[in-house]
Amino acid sequence: MISIMRTIIFFLFVLSACSETLLRTSVEKPDRASSFPENEELCDSWRLSVETNNAGPWEKIPEVCVPNVISYVKGDTYYLDSKVVAMESLKFANTVEIAGDGKDVWIFDIDDTLVSSVIYITLHGRRPTAEEYPLSPPLPASVWLYNIFLDRGFKIVLLTGRNESLRELTETNLLFAGYNSWDRLIMRGESDADKTATVYKSEKRAELVAEGYKIHGSSGDQWSDLLGSPVATRSFKLPNPMYYIP
Amino acid sequence: MISIMRTIIFFLFVLSACSETLLRTSVEKPDRASSFPENEELCDSWRLSVETNNAGPWEKIPEVCVPNVISYVKGDTYYLDSKVVAMESLKFANTVEIAGDGKDVWIFDIDDTLVSSVIYITLHGRRPTAEEYPLSPPLPASVWLYNIFLDRGFKIVLLTGRNESLRELTETNLLFAGYNSWDRLIMRGESDADKTATVYKSEKRAELVAEGYKIHGSSGDQWSDLLGSPVATRSFKLPNPMYYIP
Repeated sequence: MISIMRTIIFFLFVLSACSETLLRTSVEKPDRASSFPENEELCDSWRLSVETNNAGPWEKIPEVCVPNVISYVKGDTYYLDSKVVAMESLKFANTVEIAGDGKDVWIFDIDDTLVSSVIYITLHGRRPTAEEYPLSPPLPASVWLYNIFLDRGFKIVLLTGRNESLRELTETNLLFAGYNSWDRLIMRGESDADKTATVYKSEKRAELVAEGYKIHGSSGDQWSDLLGSPVATRSFKLPNPMYYIP
Repeated sequence: MISIMRTIIFFLFVLSACSETLLRTSVEKPDRASSFPENEELCDSWRLSVETNNAGPWEKIPEVCVPNVISYVKGDTYYLDSKVVAMESLKFANTVEIAGDGKDVWIFDIDDTLVSSVIYITLHGRRPTAEEYPLSPPLPASVWLYNIFLDRGFKIVLLTGRNESLRELTETNLLFAGYNSWDRLIMRGESDADKTATVYKSEKRAELVAEGYKIHGSSGDQWSDLLGSPVATRSFKLPNPMYYIP
């Protein structure tokens, strides 16, 4: 009897409140997954799939979504999204007890985490080669967060995919962009050349843990900044629909 | 000399292209992280922070964002976002070689993955208790994906936080919603009662792996569906800004 009533209730639900949803099932099947997305209507959802790592590895921005991505990274939404990442990071950081032994670490990636590639990429349509690396402007919310973390007593470790050959330029860039007093700037050495970012960054985090550092937080625009092992207690993904680094 | 030129280039960049961004640094600091978000302007970004797990554990929808969340889950964006998750899932599934030994598994969560709580939650403002569980309508993109996976030869495992006491209702619900031929429906038993979803679901995945299953993919609306150990080869996060399960 309960079963029958449930069936009736279910049909009432479906017919009254959900008819539009069910209609969509038969009419609007997402039936082409190979060249995707095919229309601009899906570009916001594609960006979400990148940010959640649902998209997995991808090589270039889908052609139909290039205008959407440019408008996003140059516009207010990217700014607000980044600001909210900083605020969520601070909310968590406020719960961390700093031991005062100099071992409490927050890791930041550099490109599109502390400084922005937006100008370079919108000008050139691609990331810079090692020879072309520009001095990049800061991401405002990251400057704000970084300096609060310094005040709070976090040790700041910068862990970047940039090569050692860019050390001087990178340090200059960071200082001009408003960053200073980092504890360590870890860059790719010769032995890291063939490693994916996930492997290289995991190894460097493992070295920090072996040295007795507690990695409370990690901020990066790529999932390869945040995944692997060991990971930080909490990882924070900054938005980046411009490129994917494995 | 190179350093000076770089400095000049940097300032040109900053002054010409980025003045608006830098202005924001000083004017619009995100300076209150405790009661957050405070204004509706940030609600889309808050939803993104939930989907990327930047928000971490949260107990209820921020009051200022309730209209935004209702409008999202009842509107086209949620539908499109879910559709894109299904398409990304299929893109990956197309790369999986099915061995034909009956061990190739895809795991689906149930609530807000296969069937939708949107109607219940917008009516009652909360999730149902065990006594109130409704027969829920399907998520259209999930019905589509599920049936393709069946055709392709994936074994379907349903791994839900619902209690064993709901087994009959759940099976009825799934059949009415368009799902069938699952290999296994795993529900919380008495010994799982006090476990977080992350622990309970990780343990169940570990049992599957111990039985020789290869968990190629996992689909869930909660990070607790997807994190822990072992994980699927690829995990797919469906959108859900309505509640958080640890």
